[in-house]
Amino acid sequence: MIKAGIVGGTGYTGVELLRLLSTHPEVVLGVITSRSAAGTPVAEVFPNLRGHVDLAFSAPDMAVLAGCDVVFFATPNGTAMHWVPDLLARGTRVIDLAADFRLKDPQVWQQWYGMAHECPELLDEAVYGLPEINREALRTARLVANPGCYPTTVQLGLLPLLERGLVDTGRLIADAKSGVSGAGRKAAVSTLLAEASESFKAYGVTGHRHHPEICQGLREITGVEPGLTFVPHLLPMIRGMHTTLYAELLDETHDVQQLYVARYQDEPFVDVLPSGATPETRSVRGANMCRIAVHRPLGGRVVVVLSIIDNLVKGASGQAVQNMNIMFGLAETTGLDHIAIMP
Amino acid sequence: MIKAGIVGGTGYTGVELLRLLSTHPEVVLGVITSRSAAGTPVAEVFPNLRGHVDLAFSAPDMAVLAGCDVVFFATPNGTAMHWVPDLLARGTRVIDLAADFRLKDPQVWQQWYGMAHECPELLDEAVYGLPEINREALRTARLVANPGCYPTTVQLGLLPLLERGLVDTGRLIADAKSGVSGAGRKAAVSTLLAEASESFKAYGVTGHRHHPEICQGLREITGVEPGLTFVPHLLPMIRGMHTTLYAELLDETHDVQQLYVARYQDEPFVDVLPSGATPETRSVRGANMCRIAVHRPLGGRVVVVLSIIDNLVKGASGQAVQNMNIMFGLAETTGLDHIAIMP
Amino acid sequence: MIKAGIVGGTGYTGVELLRLLSTHPEVVLGVITSRSAAGTPVAEVFPNLRGHVDLAFSAPDMAVLAGCDVVFFATPNGTAMHWVPDLLARGTRVIDLAADFRLKDPQVWQQWYGMAHECPELLDEAVYGLPEINREALRTARLVANPGCYPTTVQLGLLPLLERGLVDTGRLIADAKSGVSGAGRKAAVSTLLAEASESFKAYGVTGHRHHPEICQGLREITGVEPGLTFVPHLLPMIRGMHTTLYAELLDETHDVQQLYVARYQDEPFVDVLPSGATPETRSVRGANMCRIAVHRPLGGRVVVVLSIIDNLVKGASGQAVQNMNIMFGLAETTGLDHIAIMP
Amino acid sequence: MIKAGIVGGTGYTGVELLRLLSTHPEVVLGVITSRSAAGTPVAEVFPNLRGHVDLAFSAPDMAVLAGCDVVFFATPNGTAMHWVPDLLARGTRVIDLAADFRLKDPQVWQQWYGMAHECPELLDEAVYGLPEINREALRTARLVANPGCYPTTVQLGLLPLLERGLVDTGRLIADAKSGVSGAGRKAAVSTLLAEASESFKAYGVTGHRHHPEICQGLREITGVEPGLTFVPHLLPMIRGMHTTLYAELLDETHDVQQLYVARYQDEPFVDVLPSGATPETRSVRGANMCRIAVHRPLGGRVVVVLSIIDNLVKGASGQAVQNMNIMFGLAETTGLDHIAIMP
Repeated sequence: MIKAGIVGGTGYTGVELLRLLSTHPEVVLGVITSRSAAGTPVAEVFPNLRGHVDLAFSAPDMAVLAGCDVVFFATPNGTAMHWVPDLLARGTRVIDLAADFRLKDPQVWQQWYGMAHECPELLDEAVYGLPEINREALRTARLVANPGCYPTTVQLGLLPLLERGLVDTGRLIADAKSGVSGAGRKAAVSTLLAEASESFKAYGVTGHRHHPEICQGLREITGVEPGLTFVPHLLPMIRGMHTTLYAELLDETHDVQQLYVARYQDEPFVDVLPSGATPETRSVRGANMCRIAVHRPLGGRVVVVLSIIDNLVKGASGQAVQNMNIMFGLAETTGLDHIAIMP
Repeated sequence: MIKAGIVGGTGYTGVELLRLLSTHPEVVLGVITSRSAAGTPVAEVFPNLRGHVDLAFSAPDMAVLAGCDVVFFATPNGTAMHWVPDLLARGTRVIDLAADFRLKDPQVWQQWYGMAHECPELLDEAVYGLPEINREALRTARLVANPGCYPTTVQLGLLPLLERGLVDTGRLIADAKSGVSGAGRKAAVSTLLAEASESFKAYGVTGHRHHPEICQGLREITGVEPGLTFVPHLLPMIRGMHTTLYAELLDETHDVQQLYVARYQDEPFVDVLPSGATPETRSVRGANMCRIAVHRPLGGRVVVVLSIIDNLVKGASGQAVQNMNIMFGLAETTGLDHIAIMP
Repeated sequence: MIKAGIVGGTGYTGVELLRLLSTHPEVVLGVITSRSAAGTPVAEVFPNLRGHVDLAFSAPDMAVLAGCDVVFFATPNGTAMHWVPDLLARGTRVIDLAADFRLKDPQVWQQWYGMAHECPELLDEAVYGLPEINREALRTARLVANPGCYPTTVQLGLLPLLERGLVDTGRLIADAKSGVSGAGRKAAVSTLLAEASESFKAYGVTGHRHHPEICQGLREITGVEPGLTFVPHLLPMIRGMHTTLYAELLDETHDVQQLYVARYQDEPFVDVLPSGATPETRSVRGANMCRIAVHRPLGGRVVVVLSIIDNLVKGASGQAVQNMNIMFGLAETTGLDHIAIMP
Repeated sequence: MIKAGIVGGTGYTGVELLRLLSTHPEVVLGVITSRSAAGTPVAEVFPNLRGHVDLAFSAPDMAVLAGCDVVFFATPNGTAMHWVPDLLARGTRVIDLAADFRLKDPQVWQQWYGMAHECPELLDEAVYGLPEINREALRTARLVANPGCYPTTVQLGLLPLLERGLVDTGRLIADAKSGVSGAGRKAAVSTLLAEASESFKAYGVTGHRHHPEICQGLREITGVEPGLTFVPHLLPMIRGMHTTLYAELLDETHDVQQLYVARYQDEPFVDVLPSGATPETRSVRGANMCRIAVHRPLGGRVVVVLSIIDNLVKGASGQAVQNMNIMFGLAETTGLDHIAIMP
């Protein structure tokens, strides 16, 4: 059994990790920390866990965390980097669900996240946790940077086209829409039901932190700096992310449907829909799955890729568990066979 | 392995049965029928089942159904009664999720459902599938009438008080609220998102089919005809049911909290919340659970019981699987340990 | 023209007052205050007002407010009482949308609102702003206590029965449901879309501030202390309130439908639905209207009254404008003829 | 007073016309037709109109309709074309909210709408009712083709750029999102609350009827056939449309913000937001307004235009009333000064 710890368990990625790990057959939950909720039973904050999780939150303690085989950080950006060097030194492996180890360049980190990096020497070692690209490196990784939700949809959506060099990388557009759980479980006026329900808007048009993360990922695929326009929007719903991708084919003779089917046929958590279909986000609610459909409207040179995930599962906690499975030599699907709830 | 069939698989209780049965460790799905969708793969209608259910819908066929150990009817009211006599005669056990076998009196059936009963001789044999009351009878039942969603919340909510004769049975009030999935997956203007969202209303105030079912259940507990006012309402959400029950204590000295805790301490699917808590329906979304809280506002003689379920799980398909587990001698929780999705 | 001021304009009752007053033909907006947003154009915070309201928020200033004919307080409880004595002394009339002047007994105020009252000597003079009961007193009122949203639905729903002494006042039940805008526009986890959407729960079962307000109102109608059980619930939607009232007829021979029709036939903002109908909250969204339906399920002794409002209009800002119209001798419907938005 | 008739009043554009016209100071409602609801009072179907509209639905009758000054068709596509020739012949002006007269080429009509056109000779005369482009022609129009909702957002969003020839017309992308009221008030499984809520998806990717309408409009502005990729999506909400437009500047030196401000400064129903802002659809809920924001992410050559409307108002019935105002020489804003409801 893998002994797992969670740092920062009162947010949405934290409770989702608890849901997934508490029924994982190879995991025992060792500790879950929260400074603000220390002493409170987890099931009091998240009553869905009554009868499933008996732990109480505790204040974070290095000795306790270092007694775990793996520690998940479900903390705000800039927290994990304070703990990771010591944990690694003590032999505990780390999966960070925040952004601390996603960007390879500490200057870029500082520019977008507004703080100096505490352990830039670990950035090279950290493995970007997108199994469909980095599966081999993940097997032996000590430190995994779990991808952002938007970057997961964009990279999985464009990967087959970019790997084969089939589209104009200078003209990529990602029109992305996310449910509000992506904004986290924190008191804020803008994500109140009375503000965010029955409405829709774009945000971060002038620049979003996931833009450099996506561009880094695309660059690693193609070797060139992409020209990407990325516009995120806020959906009036809890869970779900849908990214609509637009790219121009350099050569219109390719069968893009077949390309996607072939690329992902062995991937357990990427599902390419039949030609002509459009994925709906509810089809992955609660499940660790990215569903993709590929279209060429009116048969033209523009490829439209529709890429959906549950932002809290394949976009966060589910992908983190998938990474853990790989790191510890388990079957990749262990504990991740949930069927999406529909309706 | 239990070979299970589902008749009427294109509705919400059908797809929920598929979600629960396809991951049930002791069940193999034998057949799922739908006249309208015959030939269509299940996963085409319900894409959440892609990769989990390979069956296609087929037209209902007695020989095929009779080859199953158990057949679930997830059909409109008045369908199962045409099939059940033959299935029972051929040795197949039946769980009907519709109302055909819930009411013991065929006259009352005809009055509320507008059609003569096809096999009134089976009404006595049919076991009302509320395990918390009828567990023993369920073990050997050939035919189970799965309770309605409203009746489940009301009966579980009042059971401890009524069993002990603590309240005025002539003054019971059930103010019930249901998500719109309870109306089923059928084309209708009244449950369009543009009609039912961002609004709330009562319906069926002058008489609802679940009223006689509830009264029959309460009568079996107390031996007297209850005086029950039942007002159902429609919630602007998909899943979840919340019934607020009001009863007058005959003797105010009882500790009702302790009464509920003791009554349900061994029940795996009824959870009594700590004193002072209020259950939220999302805490059981997707889970086979009834959560109950008991209050006495201002310490007075009125008891307020809050009783919640997911109408598609403990209110329908989950309870049906719980009944199946009992009927076939399995641990009652087998395949029913899902954690509710929250948020 | 009436010169109107608004204190505390950044909440939901504030923006709703702006919507109603900025198109009111007899009102000119003099000032709108907010300490936190001072200097910011109103239309920047509430873009729906772009092109309709040119004012900017300003810090509250007694001299400026006293220059208005009437000042609306759309502030948290306990704010208006610090300003009202001076404003009245300077000849400005006041309509308080908060609770400061609703309860006649300063002890009860202190018990429920946790602070001593600043001007208990004004409590007797304050007129409770429910026009259907206090219209005459409102005409000359200097100080109006605008009712709470729940109390508006309960009092209007029970008024005809209580005035005529037709029901058992010791056995009243109000099962009330409110949209989340009732919780105000303040950062809070519990009313985030990701928390409050797709779920339903009761709250305040052990005691809610509107309980003493309702009881005071009922007592003034009947002369006796009512026995009222009041359970509020939170609806997963923005606007709308639905209260389901249960009362026992003392004499079952009365035609309660006719009673309600007669009582409210001259009221412009109370609409009694035809027998058998059930009101839906969206039918009053954005409109100053209380819609009521009366039922006697199965023809029994229990009367069920369904009473709905838009909690921000007839439950707050619309009723405040209705009160202003009365106070200033205008036709009561002036500026209040909006048609509800549906769908 | 203008005597107005409405054909097909039981849908969403019909009830919205009723809301707008019944409070319009220069209009008297003459007749509202519906075959299915003939004889039923309008306020029974739409209770928000109780007290505002006393008419009952009647079966459509040419003589009655011809007695109106203007008739609005709020009917399914392919209905108006059967009535229009006679109505025009009798001197009644017509505003068609459906698609019958939007496309100039009857072949294109037949291709996309699957039926031959009944009066192709009127297609040239019909004025496309986008006032911001065709105001002069509308003044004397006998027959107005009210634009589709998606085409309204796209054309208003791109107009300033295209008029001046500033962008590559071969590379236009419109990623459009609509609330479900756009699908109309008809019984359908796909737009049930339980299907369309808490989910998001694209549809019509392979071809949508609004595509040729948009292309025709853009062509009339630029004189060349545009290369437009148009992907509509379904939002889990009732009202509101948000189109995100992507275009490539040919010359990056232009101040696009200033261009938009100047182009629309005299338009009463187009509001260009300040630089950096993002419009939210709720800011126009119930109001006849198109709000636009213009961005150049990272200062690059791609212009991102955010264009929002209420699909039932500026996207349908409000624009129809605006056209009527122009046709009859009224101030364009008459009866259209509603403030959006927010929250």
